[in-house]
Amino acid sequence: MATKHSETTQLYLGIDGGGSKCRAIIYTQEQGVIGTGVSGRANPLHGVEQALHSISESTQLALTDAGIASDRQGELIAGVGLAGVNVPHLFEQINTWNHPFQAMYLTTDLHTACIGAHEGQDGAVIITGTGSCGYAHVGEQSLSLGGHGFGLGDKGSGAWLGQQAVEQVLLSLDGFQQAIELQQAIMGQLDVNDASGVVECLAGKSSSEYAKLAKTVLDCAAQGDSVAKAIVAEGALYISEMARKLFTLQPQRFSMIGGLAEPLKPWLDDDVASRVSAAIAPPEIGAVYFAMQQHAKD
Amino acid sequence: MATKHSETTQLYLGIDGGGSKCRAIIYTQEQGVIGTGVSGRANPLHGVEQALHSISESTQLALTDAGIASDRQGELIAGVGLAGVNVPHLFEQINTWNHPFQAMYLTTDLHTACIGAHEGQDGAVIITGTGSCGYAHVGEQSLSLGGHGFGLGDKGSGAWLGQQAVEQVLLSLDGFQQAIELQQAIMGQLDVNDASGVVECLAGKSSSEYAKLAKTVLDCAAQGDSVAKAIVAEGALYISEMARKLFTLQPQRFSMIGGLAEPLKPWLDDDVASRVSAAIAPPEIGAVYFAMQQHAKD
Repeated sequence: MATKHSETTQLYLGIDGGGSKCRAIIYTQEQGVIGTGVSGRANPLHGVEQALHSISESTQLALTDAGIASDRQGELIAGVGLAGVNVPHLFEQINTWNHPFQAMYLTTDLHTACIGAHEGQDGAVIITGTGSCGYAHVGEQSLSLGGHGFGLGDKGSGAWLGQQAVEQVLLSLDGFQQAIELQQAIMGQLDVNDASGVVECLAGKSSSEYAKLAKTVLDCAAQGDSVAKAIVAEGALYISEMARKLFTLQPQRFSMIGGLAEPLKPWLDDDVASRVSAAIAPPEIGAVYFAMQQHAKD
Repeated sequence: MATKHSETTQLYLGIDGGGSKCRAIIYTQEQGVIGTGVSGRANPLHGVEQALHSISESTQLALTDAGIASDRQGELIAGVGLAGVNVPHLFEQINTWNHPFQAMYLTTDLHTACIGAHEGQDGAVIITGTGSCGYAHVGEQSLSLGGHGFGLGDKGSGAWLGQQAVEQVLLSLDGFQQAIELQQAIMGQLDVNDASGVVECLAGKSSSEYAKLAKTVLDCAAQGDSVAKAIVAEGALYISEMARKLFTLQPQRFSMIGGLAEPLKPWLDDDVASRVSAAIAPPEIGAVYFAMQQHAKD
């Protein structure tokens, strides 16, 4: 009896793990993506155990989605692109994980995003989602910019836009400035009436909670609120400057990915916006390509 | 046999608890402070259990220091000034604590600081330590400003100075700007060589870790580093504006307290700096005065 995925078909796992979620795909060369799974945050900077748990959980969900028994995970050749593993000791901790796969190839989420966006070819990417960062790979050269995380950098990201807005709203509530529209919109979204309500909602919360406010900030900016416009313009200027730094490597293609790529585009400088090409494949496919490339070398 | 503190002497406990540490004193009307104790962070915003633990621990240390048996803590009339209890549900959680004292009177650390600084009289204070905030109490009126916490406000505070500096250093390391002196000083203090070292040191760390960098930022500013100067000037401008808002209540006295009060003074606007009077007593003594005032009403 013929099964859908014969036992001789090589199964690949592609993982894209970041500060908000972990996405897994099961992939074969013949059929492409045959299953997907999504689990929680997977940035080892916020906990190595949590990251490994999210990788395992999303993998199981993807296997189930593909109709493949979970005990076949030992056949998977895994490509794993993770945020945070630019920090050497975190790379080491994840890379020495006693993983359940046939083989695992680890790199940064930026690298797999770039491979995916340009279908394995050289190029540059900027990711603006919960965080922000840029990466270019051309010949032997690569350049990684930003991505230092919430509260340390990540200008122009969703979490940064949200955090900047909350700071301005609190200054407005204390009478240090006027930010009436932004204040009403943010407090409406948080469903609070005063400064202590705002603080109670957000103090000690993760970047993803702040990123939920980003759309409100962008909407206020689009409607002409001057405080929101100043925040978005500052974030977009950083992203434009980042793009120009990546362009110094003369990449053939440049893509912007992540949830804020589209909404930020109208705010970018023209020389940057005009060079944006659509990403060909998502980061998790890039992770599969990476695994294929690395496995071929082994 | 006469004991040092007769069993008829009323013992008071004064607590000043903030984001970095919790200070306790044992006090009698006849002898003043007879014992002190210091324990860890006590801002319930970062954990109610931790805050209660720090209050208990510092109290025990202060009793020991006073040569009083720990089982006499049931005699204490406690005044507790805590950061974070401006948030109503945190006030409620601490205030309904099954405390081991004879009586406990809870208020904000700002209120007890103000009572202490002006020896129980009306006045205004600005606290700039790990965080920053302002408070004025004149007749029936009171005004509380700032103090929203790390990442939400607290401009001009130690943690804010440190965090701003690290952001600028990371931008400098990525080539978005030049901040050579500040970069060298901060990386020297952290003992790291690159951006990922900085991130590894600080990602997810508490405000007190960032506040440790404040002196370095102030030193760089004093030596003329333009990036450090811009950070300190922005923080000091916020503190000056906060002072002027407090002055609208026409307080008789104004004090600045906390570890950054002295180093920030040269950066304040003249109309503010010229009105600074020394705090008469510290916040933990203010907490004792508060307990005495409240207990007299009961």
